[in-house]
Amino acid sequence: MGQYVGQNQVNTGNQKFKIRNENFANRVRESFDRQGFMDFLGASLVEILPGRVEIQVPYRKELSQQHGYFHGGLIGTLADNAGGYSAFTLMEATDSVLTIEYKLNIMAPALGQMLIARSRVLRPGRRVTVCQSDIFTRQDGAEKLCATMLGTFMTLADTADAPA
Amino acid sequence: MGQYVGQNQVNTGNQKFKIRNENFANRVRESFDRQGFMDFLGASLVEILPGRVEIQVPYRKELSQQHGYFHGGLIGTLADNAGGYSAFTLMEATDSVLTIEYKLNIMAPALGQMLIARSRVLRPGRRVTVCQSDIFTRQDGAEKLCATMLGTFMTLADTADAPA
Amino acid sequence: MGQYVGQNQVNTGNQKFKIRNENFANRVRESFDRQGFMDFLGASLVEILPGRVEIQVPYRKELSQQHGYFHGGLIGTLADNAGGYSAFTLMEATDSVLTIEYKLNIMAPALGQMLIARSRVLRPGRRVTVCQSDIFTRQDGAEKLCATMLGTFMTLADTADAPA
Amino acid sequence: MGQYVGQNQVNTGNQKFKIRNENFANRVRESFDRQGFMDFLGASLVEILPGRVEIQVPYRKELSQQHGYFHGGLIGTLADNAGGYSAFTLMEATDSVLTIEYKLNIMAPALGQMLIARSRVLRPGRRVTVCQSDIFTRQDGAEKLCATMLGTFMTLADTADAPA
Repeated sequence: MGQYVGQNQVNTGNQKFKIRNENFANRVRESFDRQGFMDFLGASLVEILPGRVEIQVPYRKELSQQHGYFHGGLIGTLADNAGGYSAFTLMEATDSVLTIEYKLNIMAPALGQMLIARSRVLRPGRRVTVCQSDIFTRQDGAEKLCATMLGTFMTLADTADAPA
Repeated sequence: MGQYVGQNQVNTGNQKFKIRNENFANRVRESFDRQGFMDFLGASLVEILPGRVEIQVPYRKELSQQHGYFHGGLIGTLADNAGGYSAFTLMEATDSVLTIEYKLNIMAPALGQMLIARSRVLRPGRRVTVCQSDIFTRQDGAEKLCATMLGTFMTLADTADAPA
Repeated sequence: MGQYVGQNQVNTGNQKFKIRNENFANRVRESFDRQGFMDFLGASLVEILPGRVEIQVPYRKELSQQHGYFHGGLIGTLADNAGGYSAFTLMEATDSVLTIEYKLNIMAPALGQMLIARSRVLRPGRRVTVCQSDIFTRQDGAEKLCATMLGTFMTLADTADAPA
Repeated sequence: MGQYVGQNQVNTGNQKFKIRNENFANRVRESFDRQGFMDFLGASLVEILPGRVEIQVPYRKELSQQHGYFHGGLIGTLADNAGGYSAFTLMEATDSVLTIEYKLNIMAPALGQMLIARSRVLRPGRRVTVCQSDIFTRQDGAEKLCATMLGTFMTLADTADAPA
């Protein structure tokens, strides 16, 4: 798990992000735990930093497409979710997040023991946040880029991140 | 299940498609059945016509996001898969299909008893096929559009649609 | 030019849209006329209906790519602009519109005497509106679909649609 | 203008690309010069490296949208063109390139004296190449990221890059 060291201006790559809620990592974890689908897939949160989130899921046959690789729908699922949560790290404690849209390019077969989605915020905004996710497979210790996502996420102010 | 009546030129909406393999519906069903992920999700093929495919999955808690709706990753999964198989209906018996990319706009919360993806080919091609999927929720008999996908799929000639 | 008949609920295709500003067609025209780029390209507004806009530009060599067809950048320009203005027709008199993102699939060479972009709102929203544009070429009276766009547009409340 | 030093394996960022045509920079320049639209816009090629291309256009009022900024259609035009030409640098001498699709996120108003599109190949392929373009404005010497594009380009083997 990544360590968040508490300052209000954090340089992630070449960008500084304003932190609006010091408790952002817990909010991401609690939201993730409310998603029945993540548990069902066997996915876990591996890193939560301001504007950055990593999600992993180990391979099993239930997650495969017709050639036995990780299913493309799973690639999209992790890409979208990592994107949404990287946006969520920069929101207020009273905000909720939703996916407006995303675009995914699959660039290589998703063959490996682990599927890894790493997302980062490209453009944080009060209402709209743009994120990029890179999705890798890990096989015998070596990582390979298999897909890239460019997505747009919306801030819902004063909205609970849980069922009403 | 939709009935395909066997002619070589079929008008689906305002487009006629050339059928390259009379056995296309069986090929789609066999490929779908090889996808462990579809069985795992509880998804089923509901219609297979030339250039058109419908996939459905009933709601259960394991498929939910944090508010209890169908997870966005599931919406993308069905949209992508319906798109790929609608492209696959127009391919040769010796072709395989892969997703190059897709873009998904989520337009309403996916709340309902059933999630339904209906895809149609917009532009069939020997190498590249463009498809659009509309994703609906059905609740108490009423359908509502919740997302739209625009995607690009590739024909892999002389490639088995199964593990080597 | 399309005729708008003044009622507040309009069925465009299978959707009814709420009109927030009866003067929407004039607002679109005035905004279009402020875009130096439209005049430079020789583009004109051909239809303005609630949730629907059509833009056309006649061919000339200055608009070509390397094979002599309409340049892809022009296709994207009209698709984006028709999308933004179809969203704008449903906004308040004090709103401005901006493009969040769009995705364009080019499906055939853009060969013809006229390039035509027709956009319609798929999902109107107070903050975010989703639109689809179809782009056609017209040659010797026959139209051909050459591209499709799926895009997302944002409402900026209380923002002038002109330089400050 | 960037200098290409002639080796067959080039590390651009963290990727090595195979060069299939030593004369790639001239092919890009000649194709660019055949595009009437680039000349009309006042655009120029600033860098041509294997898998990387930069295009710039200086501001003038004819390129503006309604607030006086660079028009979004121009942003898309440069993003698409830089993407296509970065893919083209890695193709055979007898190949032509076409845009399958692209997705553009506009992240800030395009305000400045110069608009700059820098594209790089993410995934080169014999048939399909994926590219990313970042679009910047330069104002008083300072650059600002205003948009990002993720696009897919196709190789047309044995096809002239000029009118038949």
